[in-house]
Amino acid sequence: MSHNSFGHLFRFTTWGESHGPAIGCVVDGAPPRMRLAEADIQPWLDRRRPGQSRFVTQRRESDRVRILSGVFEGTTTGTPISLFIENEDQRSKDYSELKDKFRPGHADYTYWVKYGVRDYRGGGRSSARETASRVAAGAVARKLIEHLTGKPADIRGALIQIGSLSVNRDRWDWGEVDRNPFFSPDAGVVERWSELLDGLRKSGSSTGAIVEVVARGVPPGLGAPIYGKLDADLAAAMMSINAVKGVEIGAGFDAAGLTGEANADEMRMEKGEVAFTTNNAGGILGGISTGQEIVLRFAVKPTSSILTPRQTVTTTGEEAAVSTKGRHDPCVGIRAVPVGEAMLAIVLADHLLRHRAQCG
Amino acid sequence: MSHNSFGHLFRFTTWGESHGPAIGCVVDGAPPRMRLAEADIQPWLDRRRPGQSRFVTQRRESDRVRILSGVFEGTTTGTPISLFIENEDQRSKDYSELKDKFRPGHADYTYWVKYGVRDYRGGGRSSARETASRVAAGAVARKLIEHLTGKPADIRGALIQIGSLSVNRDRWDWGEVDRNPFFSPDAGVVERWSELLDGLRKSGSSTGAIVEVVARGVPPGLGAPIYGKLDADLAAAMMSINAVKGVEIGAGFDAAGLTGEANADEMRMEKGEVAFTTNNAGGILGGISTGQEIVLRFAVKPTSSILTPRQTVTTTGEEAAVSTKGRHDPCVGIRAVPVGEAMLAIVLADHLLRHRAQCG
Amino acid sequence: MSHNSFGHLFRFTTWGESHGPAIGCVVDGAPPRMRLAEADIQPWLDRRRPGQSRFVTQRRESDRVRILSGVFEGTTTGTPISLFIENEDQRSKDYSELKDKFRPGHADYTYWVKYGVRDYRGGGRSSARETASRVAAGAVARKLIEHLTGKPADIRGALIQIGSLSVNRDRWDWGEVDRNPFFSPDAGVVERWSELLDGLRKSGSSTGAIVEVVARGVPPGLGAPIYGKLDADLAAAMMSINAVKGVEIGAGFDAAGLTGEANADEMRMEKGEVAFTTNNAGGILGGISTGQEIVLRFAVKPTSSILTPRQTVTTTGEEAAVSTKGRHDPCVGIRAVPVGEAMLAIVLADHLLRHRAQCG
Amino acid sequence: MSHNSFGHLFRFTTWGESHGPAIGCVVDGAPPRMRLAEADIQPWLDRRRPGQSRFVTQRRESDRVRILSGVFEGTTTGTPISLFIENEDQRSKDYSELKDKFRPGHADYTYWVKYGVRDYRGGGRSSARETASRVAAGAVARKLIEHLTGKPADIRGALIQIGSLSVNRDRWDWGEVDRNPFFSPDAGVVERWSELLDGLRKSGSSTGAIVEVVARGVPPGLGAPIYGKLDADLAAAMMSINAVKGVEIGAGFDAAGLTGEANADEMRMEKGEVAFTTNNAGGILGGISTGQEIVLRFAVKPTSSILTPRQTVTTTGEEAAVSTKGRHDPCVGIRAVPVGEAMLAIVLADHLLRHRAQCG
Repeated sequence: MSHNSFGHLFRFTTWGESHGPAIGCVVDGAPPRMRLAEADIQPWLDRRRPGQSRFVTQRRESDRVRILSGVFEGTTTGTPISLFIENEDQRSKDYSELKDKFRPGHADYTYWVKYGVRDYRGGGRSSARETASRVAAGAVARKLIEHLTGKPADIRGALIQIGSLSVNRDRWDWGEVDRNPFFSPDAGVVERWSELLDGLRKSGSSTGAIVEVVARGVPPGLGAPIYGKLDADLAAAMMSINAVKGVEIGAGFDAAGLTGEANADEMRMEKGEVAFTTNNAGGILGGISTGQEIVLRFAVKPTSSILTPRQTVTTTGEEAAVSTKGRHDPCVGIRAVPVGEAMLAIVLADHLLRHRAQCG
Repeated sequence: MSHNSFGHLFRFTTWGESHGPAIGCVVDGAPPRMRLAEADIQPWLDRRRPGQSRFVTQRRESDRVRILSGVFEGTTTGTPISLFIENEDQRSKDYSELKDKFRPGHADYTYWVKYGVRDYRGGGRSSARETASRVAAGAVARKLIEHLTGKPADIRGALIQIGSLSVNRDRWDWGEVDRNPFFSPDAGVVERWSELLDGLRKSGSSTGAIVEVVARGVPPGLGAPIYGKLDADLAAAMMSINAVKGVEIGAGFDAAGLTGEANADEMRMEKGEVAFTTNNAGGILGGISTGQEIVLRFAVKPTSSILTPRQTVTTTGEEAAVSTKGRHDPCVGIRAVPVGEAMLAIVLADHLLRHRAQCG
Repeated sequence: MSHNSFGHLFRFTTWGESHGPAIGCVVDGAPPRMRLAEADIQPWLDRRRPGQSRFVTQRRESDRVRILSGVFEGTTTGTPISLFIENEDQRSKDYSELKDKFRPGHADYTYWVKYGVRDYRGGGRSSARETASRVAAGAVARKLIEHLTGKPADIRGALIQIGSLSVNRDRWDWGEVDRNPFFSPDAGVVERWSELLDGLRKSGSSTGAIVEVVARGVPPGLGAPIYGKLDADLAAAMMSINAVKGVEIGAGFDAAGLTGEANADEMRMEKGEVAFTTNNAGGILGGISTGQEIVLRFAVKPTSSILTPRQTVTTTGEEAAVSTKGRHDPCVGIRAVPVGEAMLAIVLADHLLRHRAQCG
Repeated sequence: MSHNSFGHLFRFTTWGESHGPAIGCVVDGAPPRMRLAEADIQPWLDRRRPGQSRFVTQRRESDRVRILSGVFEGTTTGTPISLFIENEDQRSKDYSELKDKFRPGHADYTYWVKYGVRDYRGGGRSSARETASRVAAGAVARKLIEHLTGKPADIRGALIQIGSLSVNRDRWDWGEVDRNPFFSPDAGVVERWSELLDGLRKSGSSTGAIVEVVARGVPPGLGAPIYGKLDADLAAAMMSINAVKGVEIGAGFDAAGLTGEANADEMRMEKGEVAFTTNNAGGILGGISTGQEIVLRFAVKPTSSILTPRQTVTTTGEEAAVSTKGRHDPCVGIRAVPVGEAMLAIVLADHLLRHRAQCG
């Protein structure tokens, strides 16, 4: 058991706080003889990096990753891969106000009540900065998936809702996702999202969002009943991301309103292969992949750091008000997209190894 | 790592198939010197037992639990508790049709594609019958919670939606839950649900549902960042239940539509205690309990066993049709209520021990 | 983490006390499509069964194993295998003397001081009866080894020392092992051992022993540095057996007295294969199997149940004397031979799966 | 499961190769509010550091440790502690000879056969350099033990045999251990050991050794039957140290030659406390600590790097000879002493938390 590790056979352990000297992770269990270089990891970190548009936090981090072990002459050796990212922008800010006050919606109170002590500088361990390590580990997971399946990992995420504005799924275009600052698959919603977020940014407010992540080309048979179900691991993976409050697979909560006839995906043969006529299951039945697309969504709550003063209490039990000054992130859900992709890659990598172990 | 175990310090391992001689589980890690008898476990099994109304499966099982180890003279000894439940109603049915056909929406295809073999009698390992073991383990978890907190575990579940018919939350009455066959907290919806399910039952159809589970009196500080978050473990716990397709905590998916001002729960002092003015967090911040109610919901898809013939394929790659005859469960979500309660109790028991280990 | 589970991918969990209704284990992670019947397990249990000679305990147990799950139509399904053994000879003895007194050399005191309660009937959970479950799980492990390597598992154990009487290794004959009641590979020592044990038995005394266990045909490459080393797992496996006080691999403690020249096994090519000229390493280098024989030994302390009254204390802190009446086991090391074999099989099975997971 | 992690609740993960840029570890699970500084860790690393006498390897490393996370204002926060040690003396040596040849007694062959690739520079991951991370983690474990028991951890190791020269236990003086370059508790053997090692060093040979490690003041009740036994975890911990081939607890292998009367430690009351009259058990009964001294020994094989050419084979299956040039370590057992101490501290720290979790 480890509080800061995830996965079983493809397993990574993260460390580091938002304002310490560095953050990083150790990836254990990756197969040997995979080609791996820092250049394989960096692009994914760059997608998550702060400061890339006015809609996300302006913290300045180059998020340059270094491989400190586990790779020799460009090839994984089967030993643990230590990934290391320096913190560069630990702004010399005065944190004295936050030292004693608990910011509503943040983990300030719960860390303090649990541990009796906390690193109050910018969230410390509970900061979303930790997710950079996930993205780095996710890049290694992608290499593993390619190594084992013989095809590049086809894992993509998109933002499908900001506030109450959803994308129009009829206009879905994966190519659009990298052409706007929101990872939106729908070009038509971009301007409205921009206006919404500009308004929230100016007023120092924030909003939530919904992310959808999809994996294609996943072999059938991944996942292990009963407590190693693929969907159970995915639910944990996504719910462990900062600010996530809900996860659903396939039809998700809408499945409650369906009849058995409408919900159960029928099967046909197509060119000698089993094919499903629909995908309400989101690619998972009985905790095991069907070979269809894995489709999941998760809800991200609005950033709790806002300009409006909020009622709170202090470590000494006094009532107080608190507001967030400085760098501001009106929709933390945007940068959750590459994190969700990474976690999906990690769960699949782990289950590829788990399946190979038991079933060959 | 174990596919069939759940939890870390309070850990249980289940075994058994729907049509084998018995099912059961081994509960490891329970503290010594807890009073425990079969009579502490049986009532929770009775709540989940099939055949209690016309709205659930008519399989006849007394679900009588036996404690085979770990308890001596009425007291836990700290050694593993083996719980044993015989299967009584393995009806001598002809399963030959199901042997080669994959029932849509069931795990038939995925088990077969993963393992190359499956127990085709009534779902085998993927049957919801496995959840009896969870409920038995959950009863032990409840005892542990009482043992450690000094108060009876206050964990309750309710069905809040069947098909598209939701309860009216203004009429919520926990007392009502045990007075109707749906675990509905709203007496006003019971008749409409009865009509809906009678119709589905007669036509051999089925529908999905949404379950809400709540724990009160949970001490603040439970949960361990980053990959041992309380909500991540709860998400895995619920998603591992048969037919569950979505999980949310507190405001859940609705949080996407909220502003930071509306979402973040403010804090005040009440009688010298920290108190929150709202509970959009569902009692968890940063993966750690706040001391508020833990509130979560999960969506259960409609039973896939329906009378209408459905298109499918066979193990030899032929197209075919399949329908379910015999015992029928128009809304498997009903019996998921005590299972969800049990899993919540289990996660809390585990985290009570985990918290005590690290923080005393 | 689980106190009562062993292994990672081939993982089993045992439960039960010496005087409860039954004991058993759940084996998780075994590959599907392995042929497995109770008849594959029973012979190994029979080797360990008590009462087979006058030199071991006279407790009468048929140790009949039942497979309750995980096998369908004679084939493993990939789901957990529940193995069940009834206790038959829980003699209606008066345990009142042992209730309050701690038997020296037994776990009575430590269980009591740890848990504040214990099952005082015949050792309870700490009884060597638990090792029947290991032998049952070991039989499944043997099947797994055969399933994956294509050859029957070649794992054998022998008793090489009783008291201070060692076998003569020049007379080593594996065929002899099953022809005497001691698992001795040396026919020449059998009579002397018989005399020694008859004397000890008559005087109600006991003695220790050393067991050697050997696996042949183990593929090179099993074991995972650094904390998953094959020898580290074997050391834990053997030390977890009741009464074991020491474990060594290959040259073991004698390696301390060797020079580098004498110790390091040189390598040659033989018929196109790598061959070692000696095996001081016991088949393991850097925690990974070399392809040579795995050779290990473990020391078993003398049975602590003896007729001579011994000084002890009571649960209420009074000095007292205690002696063991009734069934007596003058050398518990004898029956440790099949247990050591089983644990070796289990560790190898686990590492076969672990290796396949990472390296294919 | 993780190949490079050790422990359950006090858990550390190491990474790094002998000739990479750095090595380190992540310590997870340490309680919050422990005072911890680099100065608490450095002295233990200094004891293990190479180059401190002519009897150990002359590699020059300052082994300066940095704490990168988990400590804030001098206090642990309950989050993972990342410890970082730069490699300074990765001598620009020509490794081309070792690239294709397997050094007998080393892990060269097994890593290559397992992974199909290896870092051939000075042992790579299998180098004893990894043990610096263990010593660093061990220093944190010592702080934990002090934090939980209220007394400084009293864990000490000594070298008790080099080659065939043992210490005289009648002259045992713990104070002597730090006054000679061998960690010998017996001043009388130091000169003979010096002569022996000088001879071996000059001839480029090496020898094995035996280390004894002792923990005093360990509370009774630590350890968890059956597969979490304290002695089983200690056996794994010690056997995982480079070059270790045997482990024993208390009387160890000598217990085989004892009678039950001579072996079982009797109990008396002394000043109102339970006291044992002897300690053949080495402080552990039934896998649980008795409150006596924990006493264990482990055997270290001779360094395999020797000057004499040895027969070997190459990666392409040719016979060849190989010898080690340059830095030489005539008795790697010497520097194993602080490593053994660290591993003992780590196992105890883990079990203190495990016991607190289950038993309070």
